[in-house]
Amino acid sequence: MAKKFLTSREENYSQWYNELVVQAGLAEQSAVRGCMIIKPYGYAIWEKMQQQLDKMFKETGHENAYFPLLIPKSFLCKEAEHVEGFAKECAVVTHYRLKNAEDGSGIIVDPDAKLEEEFVIRPTSETIIWNTYKNWIQSYRDLPILCNQWANVMRWEMRTRMFLRTAEFLWQEGHTAHATKQEAIEEADKMVNIYADFAQQWMGVPVIMGSKSDNERFAGALETFTIEAMMQDGKALQSGTSHFLGQNFAKAFDVKFANKEGKEEYVWATSWGVSTRLMGALIMAHSDDKGLVLPPKLAPIQVAIVPIFKGQEQLDTISEKVNVLVDKLRAKGISVKFDNRDNQKPGFKFAEYEMKGVPVRLAIGARDIENGTIEVARRDTLSKETMNFEGIEDYLEKLLVEIQDNIFEKALKFREEHIYKVDSYDEFKRLIKEQPGFYLCHWDGTVETELKIKEDTKATIRCIPFDSPEEEGVCMVTGKPSHKRVLMSLAY
Amino acid sequence: MAKKFLTSREENYSQWYNELVVQAGLAEQSAVRGCMIIKPYGYAIWEKMQQQLDKMFKETGHENAYFPLLIPKSFLCKEAEHVEGFAKECAVVTHYRLKNAEDGSGIIVDPDAKLEEEFVIRPTSETIIWNTYKNWIQSYRDLPILCNQWANVMRWEMRTRMFLRTAEFLWQEGHTAHATKQEAIEEADKMVNIYADFAQQWMGVPVIMGSKSDNERFAGALETFTIEAMMQDGKALQSGTSHFLGQNFAKAFDVKFANKEGKEEYVWATSWGVSTRLMGALIMAHSDDKGLVLPPKLAPIQVAIVPIFKGQEQLDTISEKVNVLVDKLRAKGISVKFDNRDNQKPGFKFAEYEMKGVPVRLAIGARDIENGTIEVARRDTLSKETMNFEGIEDYLEKLLVEIQDNIFEKALKFREEHIYKVDSYDEFKRLIKEQPGFYLCHWDGTVETELKIKEDTKATIRCIPFDSPEEEGVCMVTGKPSHKRVLMSLAY
Repeated sequence: MAKKFLTSREENYSQWYNELVVQAGLAEQSAVRGCMIIKPYGYAIWEKMQQQLDKMFKETGHENAYFPLLIPKSFLCKEAEHVEGFAKECAVVTHYRLKNAEDGSGIIVDPDAKLEEEFVIRPTSETIIWNTYKNWIQSYRDLPILCNQWANVMRWEMRTRMFLRTAEFLWQEGHTAHATKQEAIEEADKMVNIYADFAQQWMGVPVIMGSKSDNERFAGALETFTIEAMMQDGKALQSGTSHFLGQNFAKAFDVKFANKEGKEEYVWATSWGVSTRLMGALIMAHSDDKGLVLPPKLAPIQVAIVPIFKGQEQLDTISEKVNVLVDKLRAKGISVKFDNRDNQKPGFKFAEYEMKGVPVRLAIGARDIENGTIEVARRDTLSKETMNFEGIEDYLEKLLVEIQDNIFEKALKFREEHIYKVDSYDEFKRLIKEQPGFYLCHWDGTVETELKIKEDTKATIRCIPFDSPEEEGVCMVTGKPSHKRVLMSLAY
Repeated sequence: MAKKFLTSREENYSQWYNELVVQAGLAEQSAVRGCMIIKPYGYAIWEKMQQQLDKMFKETGHENAYFPLLIPKSFLCKEAEHVEGFAKECAVVTHYRLKNAEDGSGIIVDPDAKLEEEFVIRPTSETIIWNTYKNWIQSYRDLPILCNQWANVMRWEMRTRMFLRTAEFLWQEGHTAHATKQEAIEEADKMVNIYADFAQQWMGVPVIMGSKSDNERFAGALETFTIEAMMQDGKALQSGTSHFLGQNFAKAFDVKFANKEGKEEYVWATSWGVSTRLMGALIMAHSDDKGLVLPPKLAPIQVAIVPIFKGQEQLDTISEKVNVLVDKLRAKGISVKFDNRDNQKPGFKFAEYEMKGVPVRLAIGARDIENGTIEVARRDTLSKETMNFEGIEDYLEKLLVEIQDNIFEKALKFREEHIYKVDSYDEFKRLIKEQPGFYLCHWDGTVETELKIKEDTKATIRCIPFDSPEEEGVCMVTGKPSHKRVLMSLAY
């Protein structure tokens, strides 16, 4: 596996990505159209993401729960915009039994086991959850409800790519219920900030936070907040969204509460989610032509140690020293793998850890033992140096922090080099093709203009950034007044 | 919620269970037939189970991965016994889109979006996984594969009960591939032992390990190992199974490997799983007429502290002392809740923690502050004592261990009092009704006899216990020779 070479990013970015996902052992296509298999190494990274996110959710008062996979068709239809948004990509369960065909031709769907009402496999769970919240909420004392669920969901996408867009994907979906509009908006805002913190501090991926335009909002939301990350081809990847749902779902499912004055009001809602799509962002933001580059905080193996030896005796001598180091590193909470396999050459192992993005690879041979040294190779910079063995554990601890920072800084620098302000639509149309990146432009705020830009250039409004300053200008397309620049880009 | 009383176990065990599940906030029925909603408190217990099991799996070399939710119908059909076992309870996906009806009558399943081949929602994943392993295995060097997946599965059961038998449930399924028969059998045996350790040491539920009879084996297995627990009504609950699958799935999916001599052989397989059914076992094994009783190792809250106060000033004085205790307990890794809500009376809180099975409840009032005391109430024995506040954290640490042990010992004693040896079938038929429990009986080893017993009494052979001694006897039904007693019981 590690012996193969990847197509370079420059040659074909999309092919590089697909090959990398497979060769690093992250995922592969399954026999089910559009569904991937997440392989152990890929899943181990996802587990690290889950653990940290789960911790951040719990620290902010959220609890996990679990709601049904299947949603009655009638539930999906209760919120008009919502069903409009999801109807076209629903897997539908119509029967509940198979049987032997009477003509002996094999196993068939039993026509007698047709469901009275069809179910869809959840594309998202607002409807089934708000139908449940109806029973949980009577009074203001029952609020807020702050639930999250880790689950699989299904959207029957026509064009799929591993991690980025798959028919089935894993995600978390938070669903909260509040007594006031203000509190719900604050919750939606809090969660998009948690997503941004996670992306930047754990994934090492800088993101731009903002609001979606009307056209790009979640089906059923009044406001969608998003984090947008730049990939190495200059395209944007929407990496997490948090929705202020207003009272739409409360009205659709008749969820009211008695306020402190005893008056009935509809409940205010939010929902927010990130998915295995984050894996796609992680891979595409940092990796290079030699394979995956992982930030230490999410690397299943942070340090790999490769012994260079001839014969068992040399290996024993090396192992004795290495085992002490392994213990010291583990005591610091660093995950280490001592790769003492004797059926693979060191070069093979080096290539494997490079492909798998292990942040630090050590090598130690007989001469190192004599000299009291060890070779330290960084995955992010591909640099190597020979260091004193003595005290190396402290150095490695600091190095992992440095690598985490460097990966983020590098991605941030790349993004800053690829953000442009443009005021002329002709220039925009030319540049978006020639130098993909993020474009800050004036826009008149209408859906018509947004759709025209998309039709002309394939670029979309990724968000109206929270930190975009007030600035008088005119829409680059229509010349109508604009007060802020918005973020436009090609996107995944 | 906590103000209600439960139906007693004696009055109606089944109703007691259903009420307890709801009133303790563990789960509730959903709008989807046979599917439950796992509420935050129930899910928190499940998460604790997951964490420990996951740790035990990883310590024995297993890795997590994720395989598709949907299984092509043709895959399910490749192993004859397997499809026979699951065909009757499959949710079937036949379409991938909804649309607006042309007559304006609403949203319908789009007849143009019919799938060429139907999918079933996984009832278990042997088929999709072995179809994948085909690509992962070429040589003995690729073996063993030791994968586990945490997932939801669906079996369209007609009669459902929360946690015990639901159409959708959460579980883990391990699927391993081995070069030799011996190694696969050892793996299946290792995993049933891990399940037994978990049940006994974490859930406090004593189990009997053994092999299933031919009639009770997993569809497609050569051997099924099981752990069987006794509930308080004397019925058995199958709590986890581990299957030696032989080469059945390797043959069905043509999975071969080149052995060290370069000769092709079929791969040997195991699979093993436990599910949210464990929650049912946990609830039914220990709880009483006042509510849930949780073993400390799985309790989301191990110690609840209720202040008895009048006015803010008293609460402040109490809080000052309690906060120090809370910190000390947390430093010991004990999960504590200081319940300083001022809108509920202490009595209400006591009843709530009783219903929720919190192992230790403390109460502290103004007089305790004066006297330097605190009230300690144990959930398992319902006993209370007033203790010195000073050094209480060390006492509580030991107490939690004692409660964990006591819960197990109590369940073990109950089981030992309800295991009987019977040699006469007439007696068996009478006793199994009058005093439900585990019956160790001689059986001739045939399916016919097993089915007759089931028809006559509803009892089934739960397992052939691993530790059942060799003992010459005759089958209680047919008088044919038998060399071992087997375990018979009514079961969930």
